[in-house]
Amino acid sequence: MVESLTYPADFLREFVVRVFASYGIPDEDARTAADVLIVSDLRGIDSHGVARLVTYCDMLDLKRINPRPRPSIVRETPSTATVDGDNGLGLVVGPWANRVAMSKAESAGSGWVSVRNTNHYGIAGWYVLEALKRDLIGWSMTNTTKLVAPLWGGERMLGTNPIAIAFPGLEEPPIVIDLATCAVAYGKIEIARRKQQPIPDGWAIDASGSVTHDPAGMIEGGALLPLGSDREHGGHKGYALAMMVDVLSAVLSGANWGPFTPPFALRQEIPARSVGKGIGHFFGAMRIDGFVEPEEFKRQIDDLIRTFRKTRPMPGTAGPLIPGDPEREAEARRRVDGIPLVLPVVEDLRRVSQRTRVAFD
Amino acid sequence: MVESLTYPADFLREFVVRVFASYGIPDEDARTAADVLIVSDLRGIDSHGVARLVTYCDMLDLKRINPRPRPSIVRETPSTATVDGDNGLGLVVGPWANRVAMSKAESAGSGWVSVRNTNHYGIAGWYVLEALKRDLIGWSMTNTTKLVAPLWGGERMLGTNPIAIAFPGLEEPPIVIDLATCAVAYGKIEIARRKQQPIPDGWAIDASGSVTHDPAGMIEGGALLPLGSDREHGGHKGYALAMMVDVLSAVLSGANWGPFTPPFALRQEIPARSVGKGIGHFFGAMRIDGFVEPEEFKRQIDDLIRTFRKTRPMPGTAGPLIPGDPEREAEARRRVDGIPLVLPVVEDLRRVSQRTRVAFD
Repeated sequence: MVESLTYPADFLREFVVRVFASYGIPDEDARTAADVLIVSDLRGIDSHGVARLVTYCDMLDLKRINPRPRPSIVRETPSTATVDGDNGLGLVVGPWANRVAMSKAESAGSGWVSVRNTNHYGIAGWYVLEALKRDLIGWSMTNTTKLVAPLWGGERMLGTNPIAIAFPGLEEPPIVIDLATCAVAYGKIEIARRKQQPIPDGWAIDASGSVTHDPAGMIEGGALLPLGSDREHGGHKGYALAMMVDVLSAVLSGANWGPFTPPFALRQEIPARSVGKGIGHFFGAMRIDGFVEPEEFKRQIDDLIRTFRKTRPMPGTAGPLIPGDPEREAEARRRVDGIPLVLPVVEDLRRVSQRTRVAFD
Repeated sequence: MVESLTYPADFLREFVVRVFASYGIPDEDARTAADVLIVSDLRGIDSHGVARLVTYCDMLDLKRINPRPRPSIVRETPSTATVDGDNGLGLVVGPWANRVAMSKAESAGSGWVSVRNTNHYGIAGWYVLEALKRDLIGWSMTNTTKLVAPLWGGERMLGTNPIAIAFPGLEEPPIVIDLATCAVAYGKIEIARRKQQPIPDGWAIDASGSVTHDPAGMIEGGALLPLGSDREHGGHKGYALAMMVDVLSAVLSGANWGPFTPPFALRQEIPARSVGKGIGHFFGAMRIDGFVEPEEFKRQIDDLIRTFRKTRPMPGTAGPLIPGDPEREAEARRRVDGIPLVLPVVEDLRRVSQRTRVAFD
């Protein structure tokens, strides 16, 4: 049975560019947005790549997202700024605001930008990879639609609120950290439901607020648990990190925070009230030579990477990975072999093709 | 049976000041260092307060710590700096470097300082409370002596590497986040050993690298597990956060990182090699008005705090806390009732008193 079809990255990229262009999105913006999605697929983060195109199109169809935003800096100092994204695609506003952070870093040593009135921005990691291209240490965070319970909470109050940061090596590939602040990705709950398998302790609660082993119990009104899962294993820490991301991205910029963060998809619940504009992101960039000689820094990163690779393995494992290893390996493979898409995603892309009259296959 | 004795905070503070002064530490530095320790005790973080005084004294006795350091900025931009701590007490160098970060924030919008050639700096939270006094958002991180295994590692490679950040409210008390990036504090392993109780899954491995339920197994050559504990619950995330703290604090400044971070106490293993100077800290400070009107920010923080307090509780709990609640409540209690010290700590302080000829009781 065929479960997936494989497409070259460039083919998918051009399709996405033409789809976004069909909504009146300027060519350069469409190319940037497509790149964010395709890099996600290349790096093996299938949930955040072209699988989301249909949802972006839904929002554009309903005019809930502005196809031609004019992002602006509404307040700034030499090393900080707040950006209003004019309700554009996060895939366009995010890269714009990230460039502001990087430019400030180049002139003031570091740059920190909080963004409001924006929408979902793809993978947090894309932005820190951009910073690496300019020899900067990049940081990236965003708040997202509620899906996660605080420790001891019985309902969704926070998003999966990711944190990304990357550090370049000299001969070694960079350390690329990109993590959601919940214990497990929502996609793993969906997979368990599809396979009719129970989920382990520490992943989720159901609509009553109690820990559940039934994936459907989480999906139907339950919530994911924060990183650390329960009090005994540090669930208060994952909760606190998620709140940190929420404040930096949304409270600092004037976006909606916590349970009031607007939904990404049409079928999701509309928040009880509005406390700001759109969702929020937070970007940082730091010049390495604002701290130390960049070559010396990178040499030490190489040493650190090699030292950690030589860690004595936990029995039954091959030893620690370096953050970013799995994504880099996926990218090397998929650049050659293409990007496999499961059939429901292919069907979605065909529907997008029909709706926009952009040829798919 | 008396298990602890209680002392007023001011009494302990003056004792610590005089003890540090007896080592030739200048009065202002001794007062700062004492404040860091006493605030830790007041906030209920007993492991990082006066319980550590004897260890600081050990290091001063052996001249491993410079009592009269001259910290200096060795490189800077308008918003970044690297500080060399001249091998002073972290309790002195940390506050000095944190002030550099705060001053840069006041002039450039934000300030980011990486510190090398320093020593253990107390609780990460003290530094972000200082930032609150200047109406700044403060960040604080440090690397520490190895105690934690990377995910899939079978040995100690990273410290408990904490992250702290705080956000002020208007009428509500601030959100104060201060968390170690491991699943559980070492102190909990020690308590389990004292009580001869097993420890749960997900806390620790033994010297063979396998998960252990025996606290002695962790203490005698084992390691703590990172936040998230295992692959299924996101242990790669806690590991990545610990590595992030290590790089920002130590690689960026030129300090020792990972398994080469020097020991805090005499009985701890000497690292295999030196890759820098001392341990490392990382401080950040951001002007709120570099992003948004401070009063509006604080009003939103109040709203966020009240919203999260109203979260439907997980059954069997009283609902979520706000990060910083337990420490603030401990401080309110202990400012009135005094600070309880367990008898082994009292004995340590008496030994310090004999050694330094500073009267204790």
